[in-house]
This record gives sequence, C-alpha cells and structure tokens, in this order.
Amino acid sequence: MRDPELMKKVMKKAVSLGKKEIENGRVADYIPELAKARKDALGLCIVEADGAVHKVGDTNIPFSLQSISKVVSLCMALELHGLDTVFSHVGMEPSGEAFNSIVELDLQSNKPFNPFINSGAIAVESLIIDYRSFDDLLDFTRMLFLDPEITLNRQVYNSEMATCDRNRAIAYLLKSKNVITTNVDTSIELYTKMCSLNVTAESLANFGLVLALGGKDPRNGNRLLKAETVQTVKTIMLTCGMYDGSGQFAVEVGIPTKSGVGGGLLSVVDREMGIGVYGPSLDAKGNCIAGKAILRYLADKLNLHLFHE
Amino acid sequence: MRDPELMKKVMKKAVSLGKKEIENGRVADYIPELAKARKDALGLCIVEADGAVHKVGDTNIPFSLQSISKVVSLCMALELHGLDTVFSHVGMEPSGEAFNSIVELDLQSNKPFNPFINSGAIAVESLIIDYRSFDDLLDFTRMLFLDPEITLNRQVYNSEMATCDRNRAIAYLLKSKNVITTNVDTSIELYTKMCSLNVTAESLANFGLVLALGGKDPRNGNRLLKAETVQTVKTIMLTCGMYDGSGQFAVEVGIPTKSGVGGGLLSVVDREMGIGVYGPSLDAKGNCIAGKAILRYLADKLNLHLFHE
Amino acid sequence: MRDPELMKKVMKKAVSLGKKEIENGRVADYIPELAKARKDALGLCIVEADGAVHKVGDTNIPFSLQSISKVVSLCMALELHGLDTVFSHVGMEPSGEAFNSIVELDLQSNKPFNPFINSGAIAVESLIIDYRSFDDLLDFTRMLFLDPEITLNRQVYNSEMATCDRNRAIAYLLKSKNVITTNVDTSIELYTKMCSLNVTAESLANFGLVLALGGKDPRNGNRLLKAETVQTVKTIMLTCGMYDGSGQFAVEVGIPTKSGVGGGLLSVVDREMGIGVYGPSLDAKGNCIAGKAILRYLADKLNLHLFHE
Amino acid sequence: MRDPELMKKVMKKAVSLGKKEIENGRVADYIPELAKARKDALGLCIVEADGAVHKVGDTNIPFSLQSISKVVSLCMALELHGLDTVFSHVGMEPSGEAFNSIVELDLQSNKPFNPFINSGAIAVESLIIDYRSFDDLLDFTRMLFLDPEITLNRQVYNSEMATCDRNRAIAYLLKSKNVITTNVDTSIELYTKMCSLNVTAESLANFGLVLALGGKDPRNGNRLLKAETVQTVKTIMLTCGMYDGSGQFAVEVGIPTKSGVGGGLLSVVDREMGIGVYGPSLDAKGNCIAGKAILRYLADKLNLHLFHE
Repeated sequence: MRDPELMKKVMKKAVSLGKKEIENGRVADYIPELAKARKDALGLCIVEADGAVHKVGDTNIPFSLQSISKVVSLCMALELHGLDTVFSHVGMEPSGEAFNSIVELDLQSNKPFNPFINSGAIAVESLIIDYRSFDDLLDFTRMLFLDPEITLNRQVYNSEMATCDRNRAIAYLLKSKNVITTNVDTSIELYTKMCSLNVTAESLANFGLVLALGGKDPRNGNRLLKAETVQTVKTIMLTCGMYDGSGQFAVEVGIPTKSGVGGGLLSVVDREMGIGVYGPSLDAKGNCIAGKAILRYLADKLNLHLFHE
Repeated sequence: MRDPELMKKVMKKAVSLGKKEIENGRVADYIPELAKARKDALGLCIVEADGAVHKVGDTNIPFSLQSISKVVSLCMALELHGLDTVFSHVGMEPSGEAFNSIVELDLQSNKPFNPFINSGAIAVESLIIDYRSFDDLLDFTRMLFLDPEITLNRQVYNSEMATCDRNRAIAYLLKSKNVITTNVDTSIELYTKMCSLNVTAESLANFGLVLALGGKDPRNGNRLLKAETVQTVKTIMLTCGMYDGSGQFAVEVGIPTKSGVGGGLLSVVDREMGIGVYGPSLDAKGNCIAGKAILRYLADKLNLHLFHE
Repeated sequence: MRDPELMKKVMKKAVSLGKKEIENGRVADYIPELAKARKDALGLCIVEADGAVHKVGDTNIPFSLQSISKVVSLCMALELHGLDTVFSHVGMEPSGEAFNSIVELDLQSNKPFNPFINSGAIAVESLIIDYRSFDDLLDFTRMLFLDPEITLNRQVYNSEMATCDRNRAIAYLLKSKNVITTNVDTSIELYTKMCSLNVTAESLANFGLVLALGGKDPRNGNRLLKAETVQTVKTIMLTCGMYDGSGQFAVEVGIPTKSGVGGGLLSVVDREMGIGVYGPSLDAKGNCIAGKAILRYLADKLNLHLFHE
Repeated sequence: MRDPELMKKVMKKAVSLGKKEIENGRVADYIPELAKARKDALGLCIVEADGAVHKVGDTNIPFSLQSISKVVSLCMALELHGLDTVFSHVGMEPSGEAFNSIVELDLQSNKPFNPFINSGAIAVESLIIDYRSFDDLLDFTRMLFLDPEITLNRQVYNSEMATCDRNRAIAYLLKSKNVITTNVDTSIELYTKMCSLNVTAESLANFGLVLALGGKDPRNGNRLLKAETVQTVKTIMLTCGMYDGSGQFAVEVGIPTKSGVGGGLLSVVDREMGIGVYGPSLDAKGNCIAGKAILRYLADKLNLHLFHE
C-alpha cells in the first residue's frame, strides 16, 4: 500500500495537469447524446490491492462505456470458449489503423486484426450471442466492476442505433467472409447495448483492480475470471487499447489501458492498482486527452511504467 | 537466482520441443549466404542477473544479427538524441504490416510506423550517420553484448548489398518525403553492415540481461545505457519485435523479444534474465520457429509472461 | 450493310475460336442458380443498322443480365437527372480494382469510382428508387432491348438475395458516407432484381444497336434515349465495362462492351452494329472468356476497333 | 477540311473560355525551372489532315514535354519489341491513382498498371535503353513531331535530376520486383531527359496528326509508326492520358489526349486532326486547366467526341 498522503498529492497534481489539456481536445459529437457531456468534467479514481480508494474530481458522474465494453465482451468470450476458439475468429495484432477501419479487414486478412477495433469487437459479440443474453452480460459487467448499479443508458443506445451504418457495413462484410454467422441486426444491437452501459470512474477503477489481481475479487479473493483470460486481456490492452495511439502510449506510459469515446479510461497497474478516469474531451484518436496526461504523470511519479527501472 | 537444476531441466525440455518445430520452418534464402545456415542448428542461452549462465545446444555458432541490429541502432539514436528527436522521425506504432512494407509508409503517414520495420530502421540509421561511424557502432555493439569478438561478416554484407533494391527504394521514398536527408548509399551501407554483424546466442543473452537490468553492466553495475532508452526499447520490443506476429507473441509468451532472419532471438525478462536463441529455421513471418516454441514453454514453466498471475 | 456471306463466315470462325477458350474458364458458382448454366453454351448475335440480323449458336437461351443491368440503370438515372446530378454521387474513373472492391471506396474517396462497380451501381440505384418502380425499370429494359419478353428470373433473384452480404456491406458503407440516403434493403432489392432479369444474346445485340445509333430505335428512328446519355454510357463501357480487364480489352479489341457474370457481353460498334454474346464460362476477372476471343477476332477481321487504321 | 473561318472563330472562343480558367489553376512548382513559366500563357494549334494549320495565342513558346514524353517512349518500345513484350513488363489498366503512386504497384501487382504513370514509364524506358541512345530518341521525337528544332532543356533537366528521389524509389522497387533489370541511374537519366525536351503547341499538334493518320507523315504519307503501335497508343491515351482524371475527360470530351505538367496537351481527333495546347496553369490532377475547357468546347462545337451522335 502506498502512502495515502503522497497518493492524494500526486493525484491532485496529475488532475491539475490533465485539466490543462482539456481545451486541446473535443467531446465526441457523432451522436447528439455524447455531445451533451460537460467538456470540463474530470475524475480520477485509484483503488489499491488492499482496498484503499483514492478519488479526485468527478469520479461518480455516469458516462457510457463505449469501446471499454470491448474488454468486457472479450472477457466473456474467453471465459466461454477459451483462447483458441476466440482467436480463430479474430486476430491479436495491433493494426496501426483507426478503430473503424474497413480497409485492412478487406485487403489483408479474412479476420479482424484484434478484438479492440470495431470489426473485431463485432466478431467477439457474435461468439457470445448464442450463449448469453444482454441481461447476462449486464450482470457480468456489474460483477466485474463491483457495481450493481450499472444500467443501460437508453438515450445513448437509441442515438447510437440511429447512426451505426458503418458498423452494419462492417458486420455484413464479416458475414460475407464467414467470420460471423449470426444475424447482423442482433449482433449490432448487442454490441451497441454494451457500448451504452453507464459506468463511473470509480467502477472502472474497480474493474482495473480485478484485472490487476489476475481476475480475483479484491474484497474476498474469489476468482471472477480465469487467469488465462486476464493475462490475455491485459496484454491486448497494452498493445491495442488506445486505438492507433496504442504504441506511443505503451512507450510513454506503459500501463495497460483501454479507452472509450465516452471519455473513460480503464487502467491496470499489474498486481497493484486499478485506475479509472473520466474526461469526455478527446484527442484526435478518440482517447481522453486529460487522462493521457494524468496517467503519464502518475507513471512517472509513482513508477508505474511496466518497464520502469 | 533460479535453481540451476530446474533451469537445466526446463531448458532441455524447451529445446527438445523447439527441435520438433524446425521442420515446419525454412532457412532464409533471399541471399545465398543466409541459405548456407545449418537448418537444424539450435541453441539457447540464459544469463541471470547474478551472473549465472545456462546453455543448451549451439550457443556459440556465429550468425548474422540482421533485424536485431535495429535494437542496437535504436539504442544509439536514443542515447545521442533523446526520445523527442528520434520519434519526430519515426513512429512508435505497431504496423500490422510485414517488415518491408512500403504501402503504409506512402499511404498513411509521412514517417515510418516504428523503428523495427525496415523503413523505420533506415530512418534511425540516418540519425546516427553524421555522429557515429560504423566502427563506433561496432564498438557500441561489442560493449552492449559484452562480447569483444563481434565482427562484420563480409560474405553476408556483400551478399546483402547485392540484393537491397527494395531497401534502396524505401530509402529514396523516405528522402522524397524529407524523413531522411542523408546520402542514401551511405545510409544503406551502414544499415546493411549492422545487419551483417556476427553474434552468438550467448552474446544475445548478455545484451538481453543488460536491457533487463535497465541498461547496467551485470558484471559491475556500470551504466551502459540511459534508463529512459532501455524502458523505451523494451516496450517497442514487446509491441513490434516479432514483425507482424508481435501481437500474438506478446499475448502467448509475453516476453519482450526481437527477432532477426539470421535466426536469432533476443529476449528480456525484466529485472531477471537475458535470453538468446539461435535457430535459422524461420516461420512464415521471419521469426525463429523453434525459438518461439522454446520461449512459450519457458514462459509457461518459469512464469516469465509479463502478466503472469 | 456488310456482305451477309462474309459476316456469316467470319462469325462462324469467331465462334469456333471462342469455343476453344471455354475450357480455360469457369462458370460463376457463387450462387447455385448460376452454377447450373451449361458451360459450353455459346451464342453470338449481330444486328446491323439497316436491320440485318446474324446469329450463330445459342442466341436464344435466356440468362440473367447481372452486371449488364448497370448499363440500363445508368441510362435510367441519366435520363431522370442528367449528368451533373448523377456524377455528383458516383465518379467516372476506372478503378483498377475488382468489381466488388470496398477498399478504394473507403480509403480514397467519398464516392464510388464509377457506375459499373457494385458500389457505383448501388449508388445509381438509389438515385432511381424514389422515381421509378421495378416494374418501370422492367418496361424500360424491354423497350431498350426491343424485347417484350424479358422477365425476372425468380430463382436467380432468390439465390442472389441469400448471398448478398457483401453488397449490403457496400450499401451501408455508402449510407454512412451519405452517398446514398435511401433504405438499404430496398436499394439492394432493386439492384438484385435488375441483375436477375432474363435476356438473350439477341436482345443484348438489339440494345447494342440502340446505343450504336445514339439512342434511336433502329426500326423507326424514334428516340429512346437522349444523345448525351448514350455518349456517356458508351464512353464508360469502353473505360470501365470489363471490370479490371477494361484497359486491356479497350487496347486489344476497342469495342465498348459491358460484361455480366451470367455470361453475357453487350457490345456497341458505333453507328454500325449491336453485338450480343452469351457464354457462361468466365475468365478470372468475370468476363465471358469465349466472347473475348470472339470480339477480338471480329474486331480484327471486320475492322471494328475504335482506332483501326 | 473544315471551314477556316469557322475554325478560327470556334478556336478563338475556345481560347477565351480557357483563359477564364487560368486563375483556378497553378503552375507546377516542384522544381524551380517549371515555376518560372508565365502562368497566363495560352496557345492552341490545330493541324488538319489536309495540311491546314490553325493557331491562336502562344503556339510557339517552348516548354518541356514532361509526361507527354511517355507517349513517345511507348511508341519507341512498341516499334522495337511489339505489344506482347512491352505489355509483359507493364499493364494497360487505368489505375485510378495519381501519376506517382507507389501503393498499387506494391500492393496489387508485380507490374505497373500502365505506361503513363511514372512506374510504367520507367519500365518502358528500361525496355529501350539497351537498344537506343538518348540521341536516337531525340531524333525519333523530332521525326514524330515534324520538328527538327526540338532540343533538351538543360535547366529543366538539371532541376528535375536534383529532385527525383521518388522516381528513384519507384525504379528501385521495380528492380526489386524484376520488372526492370537495367541500371537505375541510367534509366532515370533517360526518363528525365525525355521529360525535359522542349516542344511547342504546334509541334504537339503535328504529332497528334501523325497519330490521327495511323502513323503516317501528313506531308507525304510515309509510314513513321506501325498501325498497331498507333492504335494501341491512342487507346491508352483515351483511358489513361489525363492521370486520375482520365475517365471524366473521356466522358466529357472524348478526345484521346495526353497531358504533361509542363502545361502541354497532345490531342488526337482520329483521322482528322492533331491538336496541341500550351498552358502551364494546371488543375489539381496536373492537367492544363485552360486546355481542358478548350477541348471541351471544341468537342462540343466541332463534334469531336469519339461517340458524338
């Protein structure tokens, strides 16, 4: 356990550095519901292995999970089917492409590059759909986030469903290549519902800690996820978690992290901490711009980089 | 320090598993000199932080460094100029593309994706060329590999220079985009010389340990590389070190590794070990096929995965 | 008018040359209905401006129009809206890509390259759908082909609808880019119905002659299409009519032609002739393999190349 | 022969329409020598089959041939080797790509798409270089242009040679793929010299007429080029002559034309006329912007479209 006073001081400084970045980003506006977010909202929550919880700022504002749901769905698919089956439908390679790329899928491969781009996530969803309902996935999310209050944000869901033509295009392309065989509408619906779950920075931090602890519940040590699932998910968060800025983030920060355009960041300091950030102002690649600065500062001051000396 | 008996037993088993993969690969034959390698050669060397050295098989056969030289050159460029300058000329993103891709360079970016694809390595070389001679780089390599006997393999060098039209194409494309401003012939010459250095599995393991120790000489603790350089290099080895198989290797093995088509693998178990492998039979992506099986087994039995529980 | 004896002789020789190519091709089998075609069927019909009709072989076997329907739909869109409107939704450039490419659409452009690749044809269909029903288009086709017996092949239509996921992907991608705003299902349905019209080599030749005469009915000189429409369509048939083999066909044969994977070829010898070919054995690019040899021979012997001396 | 008064009137009007477009374009400035051109220079020359010559504006200002030299080199290669050999090294397909594209070459093909993009022209040059010297090609150009005064513009040549890294990249890529086997420096030198020949709108018109007459000298009917060569060249001018604006130009104007960034347009009205235009203000694709308007007007008023009714 880290010194609480030091933690508070470093976190406050990190958040103040993050705040300065907010004006350089912009709130996602491809759907009206996302555009409503308060641009200057910013929250940071860290939970430690021993249960200590540290919060600064807007850690309890609800926001939609968006791409961070890809982590949850990947966990579920791995729990259901194991690595071999899952990765026969989707790759594990960083793509160097934007999250919604179609080009590489069509040109170079008959399966999506990885589970954290849209095509890969839709393929993952199709592995789940015959085995688990949305309600099952909602329960699973609540369990992993240690937060029974997670609910579907209906406004976000409806708004997304009205503008998901590109995702439908991706799904039909996957179907034409036999990567998925499920009904496109049902897959897109499940995918979009998962993106529309409301969470908080604090619940993200909880999930981060579960992953940091190899899949065990920090409150009682009960296993929530298989060790193999968690090892895999953390690695892919490191290599693919920040869209086409993943490589740079790995070098500069070195903390496995997954971002969502709702403004969330889910970070895992292995064995030690879960970190959750909320800040809806995004950089050009779709990552929380303040959060990146926050995590870089934390990594530096608290020696959190994977390969710190 | 690990139990020497256990180490010996696990390493032997790993090598025997690796041997079974040899027939599934093929020796690089794009130049006659490489094609001369003994396909069934296989060596594994592990050096531990306390100085213990473990060897199985052909750990002292010399072979050419090839792409592993990209790690050395990146170290030199980072030592000379720091991160900001180096990464203004080359990116840090995995590319999902083969090592000699031109397409992404031309289509999507005005700088190479990362320092471990050919275009990126040529860009790195051009950052060094005005500051250090080949002899300086040779000395630097000998220092990092703790091996004063490393020399240029003239046959390999001449053979490579006769077939480097694609690399020249890449260099001229970089020049047309002002990524490099140096003389193309000189840059290609230096790049090819570095690829043609003769090393052994043991000297690779030594370099691996230097990186594992954050850049310090394991014999005396003297700093050979800046901490920042080493942290950066290890991260990029993890995300980009195995060509377009890097993501899968990170998930399945989780040890920062760089391969070369000469058959070498340079691996870093952070804080603990350097590992060197030699086996010229390569998989379809250009990575030592036996070495991959060896490292997967070692990671599993010795808990070396970055995110092992 | 050409000498009928010579015509008969040249056409017979052309068909016998074409027959030799049949074994080098294969019948389209992406849907079961197409795979049923008799591979060695081959028919050639030429109608001259003065009304002379010459037939050799299977000129009255019905087969589905497939991509040749793109010519009909382009005619209709041009008649309805004129060049400016149509070509603000679709380009006029040959793409060098296969007919069902998604890559160029997504990467390089916000509109399809031309009206004869699937993406372009779907965009054209969406310009028609609010103005004309399928029945209207069927009547239009019957008029242009001088053939009141053209009907929808229900088996082909149902078969195509069951396997059009890639076209749906293309349509949703177009919708996400606002190239089309119509309902995807309705557009795909109309597009697929047009592809599933049953025609014969003779009715193709009739339509070819209408185009050769600048849009006039050869029987009475009544204008069926605007001169501007016909000039445009003939040019695009020349530059884009044979998928990614269009350039080579223009050089070697020099007759504006549109092919369909049903085995049809629609050819226009300007001011002089319409030519229709049926032969379901296709080359690797999807063009009637016997028909290419036939047209090359005809062009040579009858001086039909656009730029013959 | 057309009525001279009408010709004069239509040409004057065309040039005045062309002048209005000049401000919408820009002079090529990738080398200083080209940037020196007088932006508002504009000349139009038409020579008819019977020898009538019509000139308006700056028809005798010398300017460099640039990409129009690709037509000359293609003629020479076809005369030397015939179609089969030439097109085993370069394709005949429009590419939909910019003139200096590398991507399609590397990704989709092992030979350049067509002889009028840089990669294709360099491949063509390499088919000539062992058989003809630059002096031979200069004589050949003078013969085809009916202009013994054509000379090398040394300033342009030197300027181009200093900035041809991208062309060198293309040449080395071709060499790495065994499309060319000649020395890269020598090939680039010959290619660049051909681009640097000084011509006039009048000499372009002469060459256009030679092509319109199937390769015969309009003064005496002597054959200068084989019929097959000319038929091929005219077709490729139509499908590929205006860079990635070729398709649109074919539809809207319908006159086989080749442009160069020096400001020249070489046009062929089959059997009837050669047309030469000079105007260094270029559109975004690198074509003479005034010339396009001029040719569109001429095509319309004089019925020059290939498929005019």
